[in-house]
Amino acid sequence: MEQAVVDYLEQHADRFVAELQELLRIPTVSADPTCKPHMQRGADWVYSQFRDLGFKAEIVRTPGHPIVYAECLEVPGAPTVLVYGHYDVQPADPLDLWETPPFEPTIRDGAIYARGATDDKGQFFTHVKSVEAWLKTKGKLPVNVKFVIEGEEEVGSKNLDDFLLAHKAALACDVAVISDTSQYAADIPAITTGLRGIIACEITVTGPKKDLHSGVFGGSVANPATGTARMIAALHDDQGRVQIPGFYDDVQPLSTADRAEFAALPFVEAEYRSELGVSAVSGETGFTTTERRWARPTCEINGLVSGYTGVGPKTIVPSKATVKITCRLVPNQNPEKLLQSLEAFLRSKLPTGLTMEFTSFHGAPGFLMDRSSPYLQAASQAIGEGFGKAPVFIREGGSIPVVTTFREILGVDTLLLGWGLNSDNLHSPNEHFSLTNFQRGIRASAALWGCLAK
Amino acid sequence: MEQAVVDYLEQHADRFVAELQELLRIPTVSADPTCKPHMQRGADWVYSQFRDLGFKAEIVRTPGHPIVYAECLEVPGAPTVLVYGHYDVQPADPLDLWETPPFEPTIRDGAIYARGATDDKGQFFTHVKSVEAWLKTKGKLPVNVKFVIEGEEEVGSKNLDDFLLAHKAALACDVAVISDTSQYAADIPAITTGLRGIIACEITVTGPKKDLHSGVFGGSVANPATGTARMIAALHDDQGRVQIPGFYDDVQPLSTADRAEFAALPFVEAEYRSELGVSAVSGETGFTTTERRWARPTCEINGLVSGYTGVGPKTIVPSKATVKITCRLVPNQNPEKLLQSLEAFLRSKLPTGLTMEFTSFHGAPGFLMDRSSPYLQAASQAIGEGFGKAPVFIREGGSIPVVTTFREILGVDTLLLGWGLNSDNLHSPNEHFSLTNFQRGIRASAALWGCLAK
Repeated sequence: MEQAVVDYLEQHADRFVAELQELLRIPTVSADPTCKPHMQRGADWVYSQFRDLGFKAEIVRTPGHPIVYAECLEVPGAPTVLVYGHYDVQPADPLDLWETPPFEPTIRDGAIYARGATDDKGQFFTHVKSVEAWLKTKGKLPVNVKFVIEGEEEVGSKNLDDFLLAHKAALACDVAVISDTSQYAADIPAITTGLRGIIACEITVTGPKKDLHSGVFGGSVANPATGTARMIAALHDDQGRVQIPGFYDDVQPLSTADRAEFAALPFVEAEYRSELGVSAVSGETGFTTTERRWARPTCEINGLVSGYTGVGPKTIVPSKATVKITCRLVPNQNPEKLLQSLEAFLRSKLPTGLTMEFTSFHGAPGFLMDRSSPYLQAASQAIGEGFGKAPVFIREGGSIPVVTTFREILGVDTLLLGWGLNSDNLHSPNEHFSLTNFQRGIRASAALWGCLAK
Repeated sequence: MEQAVVDYLEQHADRFVAELQELLRIPTVSADPTCKPHMQRGADWVYSQFRDLGFKAEIVRTPGHPIVYAECLEVPGAPTVLVYGHYDVQPADPLDLWETPPFEPTIRDGAIYARGATDDKGQFFTHVKSVEAWLKTKGKLPVNVKFVIEGEEEVGSKNLDDFLLAHKAALACDVAVISDTSQYAADIPAITTGLRGIIACEITVTGPKKDLHSGVFGGSVANPATGTARMIAALHDDQGRVQIPGFYDDVQPLSTADRAEFAALPFVEAEYRSELGVSAVSGETGFTTTERRWARPTCEINGLVSGYTGVGPKTIVPSKATVKITCRLVPNQNPEKLLQSLEAFLRSKLPTGLTMEFTSFHGAPGFLMDRSSPYLQAASQAIGEGFGKAPVFIREGGSIPVVTTFREILGVDTLLLGWGLNSDNLHSPNEHFSLTNFQRGIRASAALWGCLAK
């Protein structure tokens, strides 16, 4: 990395923290209607950062909270990078569990404590400060950059897709960068190269037209709670394998290299069990816990209700049972096709005398970065420079919808570069961000622009 | 039957209806605290009937509503009959669905409409009036009678057992009589000779100590909703047979005669399906609907809840699942033993990584009258005299706890002689009781005293 940039980052490190504190003082809780003026202040603050750097920037109104867009496109022929982040934060309550107030950022034990410290103000801000260092020392960036910093990530990014679709041409880029994930563990920086997809549905199984007396009628009509349980039970075999026909057809087997890479990561099962409060891990036979979480599809019951659920007994045969089901998908599995298979499978297991209503919710495919991507290699090198050690490649079992959106609308992959830690209390009281990681993140980001230019 | 008694019943039929109307005007809703004074009025009214007949009668205070006790023991050597009934009624709401007000008894289309008309004021009152007819015409009854008319049947008879235990010696009798069931159908009078018993429990299955993100953790820990469904699914085989070990060990097979008797009763399956709103009947293979309802044990899920049950999807692995289960038992099955088998069976099916808490509620054995009982034959003959046709022998799939209590505390069987119809809207708006059935009931009751004396 250019020495001048490195020097600048060191000289201005304290100011960067002070500026982050300014941003953290603005209570940009997107879910809280009373925070609406603060959302505007937050957007203004972010906008002013870009304006002061000479970016072409604007605050884009949406039906919800504004999106800050900024660009600096001065390197013809060099790659264009789209950086995504969000200035909104989770609600802070329960307030009484915070050691210091959530919107009075406080530094202790080498970390800055405030709501949004890691998620995502502290993380996206690293890219703003790295850009500043390049511009202030070299006069220009080695790549073209576009920033989309939204204000509704914590409430479902309801207006982001419309913005991306409406500005598809203007947002054209070669790769996207998001710092809104975590390192694998403390001092084990990571790039997240895979995400699972999802399908979600709800079924309602109906038997008799109203709850029946279980003495008078029990035994003579199908019980929808029992029937639903039998349908659910059919979803897995005794080895934990999902029984929906074709479910695994498009799953690419984990390669020996993938499995070796996962296995090389430190993982203490006893700690994992203790963290979750379970006596044993469980899942698809033949796979490790990490493989089950990151690289195998699942079928989970998220909720279930039927009949009487109050105190004590009630002697009824319920009229209905409702179940919520989500499947996590791995890359290459087709959400639409699997939703159809799931519905057909459940219908095939529906006991005589019951009817079934099937409602599907959103679906999204999994994401897997091409490991030979030059962008990935550039990011790996940059993290090596920023953190002093090469990152590990990890996956994440959840879904990050914007990554799918970027692929679908803009046709690009996303580099998921997390500077924070899972233990930073994201979405919980006492959220914090290590100042060391903040600084390492800025350095890695500064290095990234150079590496991506090559 | 004695002609004088028959004549008396005809001469006084209109007054009997007028007196029943008086009783029906008292809103004895045991569940409604504001009805407390009416409960006392109701007890007073019933008491005065017995007092006017020269019975030794009293109103017994309880921690809840009073019990009216009355006896007439003037025939040494003759059998003693205990008549049970209840003067309390179900709440009347929804009031707007009543064609005439629930506590303004109205006669139309040959029936008396009021809350409690059938359940149970109109039915127990038949025994009071038949006693009156004997006393006014013959000067004495052919048997000894004891009446227990309680005021808490619709709220669980909370204080009845204590009363029965405390007065066990005074209540000694040869047989009990209850008119609180129904004929098999219009103009098919019936004696209910069997009831099913019950065991009830609740299980809570716990996995992770809190709901987990189904993306981050899903697939690596046992899901309690899925696990519970698998446990429930194991309760039956594909033939609808309960799989709890030993479940059928003590079940006495239905005799050819029993099955023929059931089969001889009119039953139109299409009407049954339509009444319940199901496309097909369902149950244990090899048995008819009537056999499944009356004479086969069951295992029903009454309620089920786990995880998220609100609107839309929520991507969690639930921490817990709770299920309520009741089994209906047939005579000779042991409730305690089966509760233990059920618990052991569920524990044997509990998936690795989950824990289970088991809570049992009340249990009660089934009831089956000895068909060779002389009391049963007497009742059959009496109904033949009262209704002009011999009764059919039926069973009832539910439980009537007081029948078990009479057997346990007093050591006697109960004659379940129902004068009403299932279509009388018990527990619903527009409850009614056919005046014809009221009069037939009084005649059958009057005949009963004579038949039991033989």
